[in-house]
Amino acid sequence: MRGLYFEKTLTLRHDLPEPEPKANEALIKLRLAGICHTDLELTRGYMGFTGVLGHEFVGETLADYGSFAAGTRVVGEINVACGVCDFCLANVPSQCRNRVTLGIDRYDGVFADRFRLPVRNLYAVPETISDEAAVFVEPLAAALQIPELVPIAPSQRVVLLGAGKLGLLAAQVLRQLGCELVVVARRARPIGLLEKWQISYVDARRADWLDRIGRRSAHVVVDCTGNAEGFASALEIVRPRGTVVLKSTYSGLPNADLTRVVVDEIKVIGSRCGPFSAAIRLLEKRLIDVESLIEAIYPLEDSLAAFEHASSSGVLKVLLRP
Amino acid sequence: MRGLYFEKTLTLRHDLPEPEPKANEALIKLRLAGICHTDLELTRGYMGFTGVLGHEFVGETLADYGSFAAGTRVVGEINVACGVCDFCLANVPSQCRNRVTLGIDRYDGVFADRFRLPVRNLYAVPETISDEAAVFVEPLAAALQIPELVPIAPSQRVVLLGAGKLGLLAAQVLRQLGCELVVVARRARPIGLLEKWQISYVDARRADWLDRIGRRSAHVVVDCTGNAEGFASALEIVRPRGTVVLKSTYSGLPNADLTRVVVDEIKVIGSRCGPFSAAIRLLEKRLIDVESLIEAIYPLEDSLAAFEHASSSGVLKVLLRP
Repeated sequence: MRGLYFEKTLTLRHDLPEPEPKANEALIKLRLAGICHTDLELTRGYMGFTGVLGHEFVGETLADYGSFAAGTRVVGEINVACGVCDFCLANVPSQCRNRVTLGIDRYDGVFADRFRLPVRNLYAVPETISDEAAVFVEPLAAALQIPELVPIAPSQRVVLLGAGKLGLLAAQVLRQLGCELVVVARRARPIGLLEKWQISYVDARRADWLDRIGRRSAHVVVDCTGNAEGFASALEIVRPRGTVVLKSTYSGLPNADLTRVVVDEIKVIGSRCGPFSAAIRLLEKRLIDVESLIEAIYPLEDSLAAFEHASSSGVLKVLLRP
Repeated sequence: MRGLYFEKTLTLRHDLPEPEPKANEALIKLRLAGICHTDLELTRGYMGFTGVLGHEFVGETLADYGSFAAGTRVVGEINVACGVCDFCLANVPSQCRNRVTLGIDRYDGVFADRFRLPVRNLYAVPETISDEAAVFVEPLAAALQIPELVPIAPSQRVVLLGAGKLGLLAAQVLRQLGCELVVVARRARPIGLLEKWQISYVDARRADWLDRIGRRSAHVVVDCTGNAEGFASALEIVRPRGTVVLKSTYSGLPNADLTRVVVDEIKVIGSRCGPFSAAIRLLEKRLIDVESLIEAIYPLEDSLAAFEHASSSGVLKVLLRP
């Protein structure tokens, strides 16, 4: 079986053993997969991962599994939970203390012809959602985790920092909430999409972008920049008693003074995986434009070139098809 | 008039002009004042302050001011608010956008024979509260701001880092809430007080203190350490989806990886000034032991020596009496 395998270096292998699903796991055939910023970080040593990469997918079941008949198109949650720890018992399996994670942490991922995943992680994809849209369910769910964790009211001013792959999904999610949203973007293509979606933005290439946004002006600032400067900018923009939502993971230390957090009584909240069923619902209703985020689709056979492409600065979503 | 004046260096001046209260301000005679960690930071350049230091006080009004007859014992909130900004109109004057702050920011403080403060900042001190207790209303209110901003349930495990002046007040406030509280302390005197109050603690001088506390074990971690290592330890101890409350301000950058905040969906919240009326109520009911925190009382005339004493490591509350 073919698979994009990482062990210190990235190689497309043709000799991978067939996945062997355990009890309660399904064997899934890949239809389409997405390359995420986290995949790029993994190839730089994040998590010390070894194995098949990939966690954004739409696939089809290769046998009957409970309510999923063979051939059902499915997407799936990435956290493989133990089912018995305090977080699992509290119905928060995404924070399972004993979890392994699809293509990220001690569990082979989806950049392969076939892969396995627990049946309870799966969601059937409605017919009206194309593969090219369904492959965005996982990152869209991550964007939806923002309002899941932070109440955002229509009267509030929300500033989103970063208009990359995740930022452009978050922008569309936040716009839905009716808040006064402004996105800070710095590249032509995302700016074009924001204009198309009628979402306000400030061009970060302008020297006065921070003045245009307004210091201490936002009730909520969402950091999707993926770099350490994002948090420092967020602390400039958030108003006293406001909230900073951290979406991006990066190595290195934050370059920001926490005294500001204390004196202005700011709340900082991290946010990760989100609700799949809501993401599927929004895609079904066509309320989120995901197809515009597709930069390129490569055959799995060319996945090394796809990774190269995805690593280039400013590139949006690169997909892999078997 | 005498006053402890800071302008690059600290001097006890005897030639200060009498304070001239504006409309709606009261003239107050000092009875007792407390030296706070922030006062020490101010003498190291924090806020670029010039003027009379001091913001923890109990005094008496020198004339009739509305409901405060002359000679009323009073304590007072330290934020001098504009009354018309969005935060003032939202009844959050402590975050007034145009505020000056008693003895901290562009407003002379209380380490003097007499000082001024807006009448609306004042609270009468009930007879049953001694001066030695009333002088703790301001820092006790700051400790009470923790449950004001973060709901803490009896079923939760709460770890308090730091058992200094503020930490020992926070410990007593948190104990009241019925949660499973453990304090991390490293000095004999605070440990003696925690034992007296029957509050559980772990001695941070032990090499295995973090294992004893338990990594990722606490729903809420309160950082009263006053140093950059506090936040890093808090991130070790807080459980996924838990909350870190930052109470301490310090210069310098946090030595902690924010990726932990994102992956574990941790909430970090800053907390500053708190509710005076609640602090007065708890002191009146004798639910908080503040007198045990008094390290020494100096006459105002010896306030330079008092500052010297207060600056020594591990010293609790040093008071000044005119």
